[in-house]
This record gives sequence, structure tokens and C-alpha cells, in this order.
Amino acid sequence: MAEVIDIDDPGDPRVDDFRDLSSADRRPDLPGRKGLVIAEGVVVVQRMLSSRFTPSALLGVDKRLEPLADDLADLDVPYYRASAEVMAEIVGFHLNRGVLAVAQRPAELTVDEVLDGARTVAVLEGVNDHENLGSMFRNAAGLGADAVLFGDRCADPLYRRAVRVSMGHVLRVPFAQMSKWPADLDLLRDRGFQIIALTPNSDAVNLATAMTGERVALLLGAEGPGLTEEAMRATDVRARIPMSPGTDSLNVATAAAMAFYERVRTS
Amino acid sequence: MAEVIDIDDPGDPRVDDFRDLSSADRRPDLPGRKGLVIAEGVVVVQRMLSSRFTPSALLGVDKRLEPLADDLADLDVPYYRASAEVMAEIVGFHLNRGVLAVAQRPAELTVDEVLDGARTVAVLEGVNDHENLGSMFRNAAGLGADAVLFGDRCADPLYRRAVRVSMGHVLRVPFAQMSKWPADLDLLRDRGFQIIALTPNSDAVNLATAMTGERVALLLGAEGPGLTEEAMRATDVRARIPMSPGTDSLNVATAAAMAFYERVRTS
Repeated sequence: MAEVIDIDDPGDPRVDDFRDLSSADRRPDLPGRKGLVIAEGVVVVQRMLSSRFTPSALLGVDKRLEPLADDLADLDVPYYRASAEVMAEIVGFHLNRGVLAVAQRPAELTVDEVLDGARTVAVLEGVNDHENLGSMFRNAAGLGADAVLFGDRCADPLYRRAVRVSMGHVLRVPFAQMSKWPADLDLLRDRGFQIIALTPNSDAVNLATAMTGERVALLLGAEGPGLTEEAMRATDVRARIPMSPGTDSLNVATAAAMAFYERVRTS
Repeated sequence: MAEVIDIDDPGDPRVDDFRDLSSADRRPDLPGRKGLVIAEGVVVVQRMLSSRFTPSALLGVDKRLEPLADDLADLDVPYYRASAEVMAEIVGFHLNRGVLAVAQRPAELTVDEVLDGARTVAVLEGVNDHENLGSMFRNAAGLGADAVLFGDRCADPLYRRAVRVSMGHVLRVPFAQMSKWPADLDLLRDRGFQIIALTPNSDAVNLATAMTGERVALLLGAEGPGLTEEAMRATDVRARIPMSPGTDSLNVATAAAMAFYERVRTS
């Protein structure tokens, strides 16, 4: 059972890992600083507890202990219990989710590890918006995609906002960084993945008919610039979601959801 | 041609409609105050100009005049030209999109008007998040849904953030407010719409097979609470998007996109 330790002094050094969560120069969840991973709220904390991210401590108000009781039963970490006011002073704002967990970043997974057994993966290039990244992981989890690979110039999926928007699914859907971009797409090809670029380009084939492989990797770029030509050339098929004339491409997380949905529907 | 008028004094009363855009107590885009509709950025301003929302004025930096030249050619409204600094003082923050247009709210469309000729409509209950509303309209426009109807307890689609997130499509996709909820769903039934409730409930039929009508109305509720039982009972079919176990329902705008996509695919 997690040990409950009362914190009355916001300056208590035992809760330093939870300090100044929204202060850009001191926040603990940035790689290069402490690089900690923060889970917020009962559901996301539960997802962290069932993930490869092992929390080193929790900080929460008294009434979050009860919904977490089962989850904390076998856990040997402190639950720092504080009033909402003391918690607000520690984290720097009023947090109405009422509970946080903090974990060290574990060793990164390798491309090999995340592809093991995967049938559907998303491969991202230039997706540098934390909210889009979070939504993408949420949609991947909900619609049965197995993994996410990062090509070039993507944001940190373990940033606090990304964890929150993903509803904790960045902690559970495995991801890995590719080191050579786009050359490492060959790692997918070698493993039998059909590599499909999603593009609004009207020359591309319809998404509904494009995904014919037993294993499929869906390449997605950022809104606006989309995929680089270099990445496009490294794919097997260019596919599009049929869009109405005079509209924009879909948000990248929505486009991914559509592709995941199509994949579930046809397999 | 829109008349270009230079504004050097941030206190100039001619730009009062653009004042304090983010200040909750004074912002001009709230119903009950001035109720103005604000378009931000070249693309959204262009969409406003091709919509039923007729701007009364624009405020922008000099270099936004050129990309808007064609659009402004036949327009008889002032373009208040200001430096980025003066503009920031007027609106209350630095606006890197560089141009704004403001319009009075026109008369609301009726349910009859928005249903005229429509094949696919979304009907929302309790969607009170401006960002979700905006995304919903963006997805409706992109994936060919014809109209949006508001049942009970929805946020204002003409709130500045909703306009922006929709990329201006709230100005173009017609919408109307239902007055009696959910009784007014009969207005749809009378016009031959098949009324489908989207729900994560596992008893519901698969979305892919549910949409059999020539005209389809898709009922969507807010994340979390979902549709009320009362609304559910007023529908013809309950349909679900197949989700992985242990995940949450999709974001409402994403769920809508999936349904719109399915509708395009099968019709």
C-alpha cells in the first residue's frame, strides 16, 4: 500500500518533482531538465500505473485516495496528501483533477520493440503540436492502432499537455524514435509493412482502397506543410481522404483516426 | 474597393468593435453584448466574405492588404490599417494572423432553411466546448456534411475561438437552433431523415451498417455525459464506432468526422 504522507508546507522538498508545472523555465516535464512524466487525474494516473512508466510519487487531495485505493494497494511509493490550496501553491495553479503522479522516463523503446506484433502503425513527420500528438495517441488507442513511430521534427509525446490530451494513452501505446529519416522506413518495409502516405493531393488514391497490406504503416505530416517530398518518395502508396472542394486538409489526429477506422473496418 | 484608413491612435473609436478581444467582460463577440462575429487571418476573412456574414469593417496590418486585394475589390467597407503594435494595443494581444474582420450577427437561419436540400446533418446536444464545436464544423465542411442543428445546451458557435478552430467554416456550414428538445427531432423525421444516435454503448449497432437512409441525421452528445436518455429514445437507431476495450469514447468532433466519412464512403 502506498504510504500516505501529509504535506502542509508548499515548500517541502519532498514534492519538488511536482513544482511549477506550468512555468516554462522550471517545469519538470521537459527533456533536458528533469524529464519527468506527469499524469493528471484519476484515470490518467491509473493508466500510468498499468504502463511501463512507474511513478515515484503521487501528490493529491484526500478525496482522490478512495477512487485510487485498489490501484495503490500494491504500490510502494508515497502518496503526498495535501489540501487543494497547498497543492495549488506547489504546482503553480489550481488543479481540479486533484491528483498527480510523477515518473522518470524509462529507457526508450526501439523500433524493433514497438513493431513486434504490430499490424497498424502511424509514422509521424513534423508533428510538433503537443495537442495534436496527444489526440493522435488517444485515437490510436481507441481505434486499435498498435504503435507510433517518430520520424523527423516531432514534439515530445511525454510533455504534460500531450499526456493529458491523450488521456494517458501516450503511456500505453508504444512509440519509438527513428534515427535515420526517411531511410529508416526501410525497417518497416523489411518487416512487410505496406507504407502509405496520407496526403490531400487529388492525384492520390482513395484511402478506402489503398490499405491492402497485412501490415500497414500510415505516414502523416503536420497540418499545413504536410509530408516532405522526400518522405513521400519513400512510401509505397499515396492515399487521400475524399474531401469537399474548397476546404482544408483535416487535422492530423482526425486524419489518422479516419485511417485507423478504415483499417478496423476492412480487416 | 474597400477604403484603406490609417489608424495611429489605439484609442480611436472607429476600431471599437475590435477592442479587448480576449477580455472576458468586454469582448465584443459574446451574445448579449455586441454579439459581433470576428474572423481572424486571411483564409477565415475570405471565408467570411463569401458567407452570409457581411463584415462591417476590417482591421489589419499593411501586408495583409495584398493577399486580400481580390476579395476587397468589390467591398464597400473600411480596411483600418494599423501597425502590428497599434493592433496589439487595440485587440489586447499580439495577433500574428495580422488581419481581422467583424460582422454583425445576421438573422438566425430556421430549421427549415438549413434542412432544405441537406442529406447529412449533425444534431448536437450538450456540446458546450467551443473548440469541439469549431472542430465539428471544420470536419463537417471537409467531409461534406450539409448542416448542423443545435438541440439543448450547446455553446455559441459564433464565439471567436469556435470561428477560429473551425477555420471559418461555422460561417459557411448552415446551422440552426431547435426550439423544443428533443421534440423537434420530429421535424427531421417528417422530412424523411433517419435519426441515428452515436453512442459508445456496446449494445448499439455498428456505425458502418447503421446509416441506411437517403437522408441521415446524426445525434451527438458531449464527451463524458453523452446523449441524454430522453434524446436517445427519440432516435431511430443507436450506432457505435467500434472501439478498443479499455479506452474512452472519441472526442465528439472526431466521432462526427468518422460518421461523415462513413456517410461519404457509402453513398
